[in-house]
Amino acid sequence: FSVASAPEVWLAAVAQHTSTIRIGHGVRLLPFHYNHPIRAAEMAATLDIMSRGRLDFGTGRSASALELEGFGIDPSLTRAQWDEALRMIPKMWTQDEFSWDSPTFKMPPRNVLPKPVQKPHPPIWMSGTQPESAVLAGERGIGFMHFSLSDPFGMDAKVRSYRDALARAEPVGEFIHEQFAAFTILFCGRDDADAAARGGAGATWYANLVELVYASLGTLSADESYAWYRERIAREAYRERDLGELVERRSVIVGGPRRCIESIEWYESQGVDMMLFLVQAGNIRPDDIVDSLRRFGREVVPHFAGRR
Amino acid sequence: FSVASAPEVWLAAVAQHTSTIRIGHGVRLLPFHYNHPIRAAEMAATLDIMSRGRLDFGTGRSASALELEGFGIDPSLTRAQWDEALRMIPKMWTQDEFSWDSPTFKMPPRNVLPKPVQKPHPPIWMSGTQPESAVLAGERGIGFMHFSLSDPFGMDAKVRSYRDALARAEPVGEFIHEQFAAFTILFCGRDDADAAARGGAGATWYANLVELVYASLGTLSADESYAWYRERIAREAYRERDLGELVERRSVIVGGPRRCIESIEWYESQGVDMMLFLVQAGNIRPDDIVDSLRRFGREVVPHFAGRR
Repeated sequence: FSVASAPEVWLAAVAQHTSTIRIGHGVRLLPFHYNHPIRAAEMAATLDIMSRGRLDFGTGRSASALELEGFGIDPSLTRAQWDEALRMIPKMWTQDEFSWDSPTFKMPPRNVLPKPVQKPHPPIWMSGTQPESAVLAGERGIGFMHFSLSDPFGMDAKVRSYRDALARAEPVGEFIHEQFAAFTILFCGRDDADAAARGGAGATWYANLVELVYASLGTLSADESYAWYRERIAREAYRERDLGELVERRSVIVGGPRRCIESIEWYESQGVDMMLFLVQAGNIRPDDIVDSLRRFGREVVPHFAGRR
Repeated sequence: FSVASAPEVWLAAVAQHTSTIRIGHGVRLLPFHYNHPIRAAEMAATLDIMSRGRLDFGTGRSASALELEGFGIDPSLTRAQWDEALRMIPKMWTQDEFSWDSPTFKMPPRNVLPKPVQKPHPPIWMSGTQPESAVLAGERGIGFMHFSLSDPFGMDAKVRSYRDALARAEPVGEFIHEQFAAFTILFCGRDDADAAARGGAGATWYANLVELVYASLGTLSADESYAWYRERIAREAYRERDLGELVERRSVIVGGPRRCIESIEWYESQGVDMMLFLVQAGNIRPDDIVDSLRRFGREVVPHFAGRR
């Protein structure tokens, strides 16, 4: 995860230099003016072909006033448009003749091409932070990517409400994709002090920046779907957190291998199925990122081998 | 050139397997509902980065009723939207703070990222067939990709009017890109009979199909910008042409090396700067395509070496 305005282009290149790792959108914004639903379906299917079936299709409605206002999108319409596109795209992927006729979107019969490699279609996800969002994902039978970086507390309750919603799901796609993933920052150093020295500043900068972005969402619209952000700001106000507090509250994982293992086990105890890590936060140096990833693969991943 | 619904994804992959050949859009459709102008700028800049500065940005308004109606786009608005996007995108690429305020497009100040690698920006082209289109490209200071496959007659007059218009150009970009390119089909066989046997059916099928697509454009709209298509249909009606006639009228280049050289020299005599070839027309077999390209590189290209 990071800011990339044309991830479908970048990921197509990444897919040419890799062969087994999955690639994914985190997230493809689905309000119509960001990405026309037909174009979103076409780009994802092409990317699935260029990666030989390795695409995970993560979706969302938008993360900041900066982009919503830049594109002139009414925040009160984003959730409905996300929902409608989410219901259309799997049909575009699987039907030889797709058409749609709603008050907000019309399309005459067409065969949207190409079709994805993965059958019936790539796994679909939704990204979110609010408790309500986990329910929305579950009801639609798609995976949920939780923004744990900002809000690790109460994740276990979100996991439960996600799985409860899955039990009554009416899937938008051809299958139920049950996955609760947690997104946070990772830096794995030789020990906790080394990790703090090389990864601490970048992780702290990024985690605090996210709070500012959330604050912008809270003031964006009177729409009820943003009420949670407004309440959150009223409750917590904005204040900078230092690395110690961020590590303590599980917002970021910055430490030696032992702390990394212990933090991931905490996430596991919350009911999380999969971890998603931002590894290039802020000013962390490229060499240090590679060093952190290598150590993580060598000393942390084996601890969890076979547990999936 | 071929039908590709997400060329930015495919081209990003191609760029990873090549190092010197230029890659390009032929064309990026600029009516707003196909590709939001901001997204078009972002995707092209990202593609320029992933290809290390090898992008040619070809633009157009649309080629068929199939796609215009599929996206619900009013044909009478396409030329104006193409023109407006064409004026915005180079500014998005070069300005750190871009904004726009017209009756049809508004955007608050934003830094559209990333910026392309090529400075000041990638070369810009327009694709077209009508005599008027060559003038539109010239007046805007951009390259013209002429659809010679369908309409090779009178190309010399189009070249002249393109260069006349360039002389009074008010460039939409930061520089004038003077290039008149001709697009046609190529199959280079051992001799004319071999080329006809392996490439003739595919080339004939494709060339005739294009006429049907043009016929759909002619009936699409009463808008004056489609008048030329209506007149053309009234004048020529639709009829299938056989390979002999297509080769004779220079619609396609299907022959041995000598005929290929002679045909390209005819294009050169019309004032054309660059040839663009479709090589995978219809049912031509992949092995034959590779064989044709190898022979073309070995026996035709050297004839024109140093002439550029």
